[in-house]
Amino acid sequence: MAKIPDKNISVEDFTEETFQLESLRDGEALCKTRFISLDPYLAEMMQSWQGPEPEWREGIIVGRMVGEIIESRDPRLEPGDWVNGDSHWQSLESGPAKRFRKLQIEPGVPMSAYLGVLGASGLTAWIGVNRIIDVKEGETFTVSSAAGTVGAIAGQLAKMRGAKVVGVAGGQDKCREVVSILGFDACVDHLAPDFEAQLAAAVDGCIDAHYENVGTKILDPVLGLMRDKGRIGLCGLIAHYLNDDAIELKNFRKLLTSGLTLQGFRIYDHLDAAKQAQVELMAGIRAGKITVRETITEGLPNAPQAYVNMLGSGGIGKHVVHLTD
Amino acid sequence: MAKIPDKNISVEDFTEETFQLESLRDGEALCKTRFISLDPYLAEMMQSWQGPEPEWREGIIVGRMVGEIIESRDPRLEPGDWVNGDSHWQSLESGPAKRFRKLQIEPGVPMSAYLGVLGASGLTAWIGVNRIIDVKEGETFTVSSAAGTVGAIAGQLAKMRGAKVVGVAGGQDKCREVVSILGFDACVDHLAPDFEAQLAAAVDGCIDAHYENVGTKILDPVLGLMRDKGRIGLCGLIAHYLNDDAIELKNFRKLLTSGLTLQGFRIYDHLDAAKQAQVELMAGIRAGKITVRETITEGLPNAPQAYVNMLGSGGIGKHVVHLTD
Repeated sequence: MAKIPDKNISVEDFTEETFQLESLRDGEALCKTRFISLDPYLAEMMQSWQGPEPEWREGIIVGRMVGEIIESRDPRLEPGDWVNGDSHWQSLESGPAKRFRKLQIEPGVPMSAYLGVLGASGLTAWIGVNRIIDVKEGETFTVSSAAGTVGAIAGQLAKMRGAKVVGVAGGQDKCREVVSILGFDACVDHLAPDFEAQLAAAVDGCIDAHYENVGTKILDPVLGLMRDKGRIGLCGLIAHYLNDDAIELKNFRKLLTSGLTLQGFRIYDHLDAAKQAQVELMAGIRAGKITVRETITEGLPNAPQAYVNMLGSGGIGKHVVHLTD
Repeated sequence: MAKIPDKNISVEDFTEETFQLESLRDGEALCKTRFISLDPYLAEMMQSWQGPEPEWREGIIVGRMVGEIIESRDPRLEPGDWVNGDSHWQSLESGPAKRFRKLQIEPGVPMSAYLGVLGASGLTAWIGVNRIIDVKEGETFTVSSAAGTVGAIAGQLAKMRGAKVVGVAGGQDKCREVVSILGFDACVDHLAPDFEAQLAAAVDGCIDAHYENVGTKILDPVLGLMRDKGRIGLCGLIAHYLNDDAIELKNFRKLLTSGLTLQGFRIYDHLDAAKQAQVELMAGIRAGKITVRETITEGLPNAPQAYVNMLGSGGIGKHVVHLTD
């Protein structure tokens, strides 16, 4: 990044540099980046230049990618292998071979799916629906950011569990796609002036279980509609990542008066579920019950604009940047 | 009540009336009210004249009481029996005998304890500490409104479970009593200008488990200090009962970033625990590990002022009104 963003992240906060990679040492591999994952969780690190990896302190972004090994000095990898892992936003990435996780090539499944439905997003959705909320047959389940990659998968997983699934998304086009393409029972546009009334109608006045990705604007009316002993999985607060303002909830009292459970969760507390989640997600894809939706931007130089667009929630499903040669 | 309160409940909102009770029919009993329970949960009903009992719609308060049977036309009760139950704030109460639950007279235990440590307050504390939060040995446990009846018992129960117990109360006198009389490890005054720093110091920077009775002013700094995967039992929001303002939490994000669980709970979802809770609480009292603290006001005409005082959090422990003949 060129500088720490003033307030909102903008394209001017990014810069592109060209440099020479060192030649490989034993145990290292060279990877051609094919897909870069544009994830909301990066925003907080971009804003603060602080993250789990020390490179953040220099403003170097560390995100998720899928790539192809083009050179290897480690027996575990060979040229032509597809891998994923954490990486800088670079066209080429070299490093210890153990940093790259070899991927299975599945017929009919795009490799970028390993950044979404078969990657962290899919696992995040699976954990929320299965472990945190434990969605049950016949329940009314809502999910915010339903057109986003995690929300889209969460809704489809809840549907597989027999729930009535109502999404919340921004804009009528998105909502239509969430119903027609992802198979949700309904999707409510939070930009509509009568959003809260529409939501209440779509859930018949009562929500059993909710998967939150956004923040107050969705969570507050949802709280107001929660049934007694309802469960809320708190997966994201994308509307609140870019500032420190207090979060205001008129219906916070509902947590008490309806005996609700609100549980925040992080993917890295549940990595033991990765295998089972991937098996079930893959089965869902094969059975046509999980539809992979992606918004693909071409070319690394377009990554900053694509990232800003994603935060502004343009497009549908998983946002990735595709790098050609 | 004389009228629906404008904003805050005040003594002027109450009125006293004298009327003739109908004579008893078969299956009914007449009870002399001995103790009336002053509970925060009543405030919302007083404000709205709406509650589970239809009398609320006429502004008639239905609260908890302990009394003595003086006449009975039911074989289950006889004069001299002590009972508790829900009742109007009346000096005499008549009705179906099944509305009155017969109490055991325990040596050394005041009958008013059945409104507090051996009643709903004790059960509420027990459920939060045992079922909702599941406090474990060696954990750091905090509780707000620590000088209040529920908070006082919750802290003592957590102490019995081997936790380090830090209370939060309003005023240095109360805090001193919470430590010296109730045996908490520490108690922090939320009225102190450096409350947040004092709290952080008292918990060594980290809280494993928290029992919330009050609201934002305590919950927000507590959230900021919660350890990863910490648990919060939400039992009350006394600071927010008297208005509908949005509840603001600067550290709400912590629920997500630290993977916390916040669970609201209501006593009537856990009545199956009443027997076990009462046995354990009674054992705690006998072993000197649970100290019964009460603020007693004499005379029914003083109940409104006592209730307003209780909301303003004057006094220590369970608040009751004692009725003499």
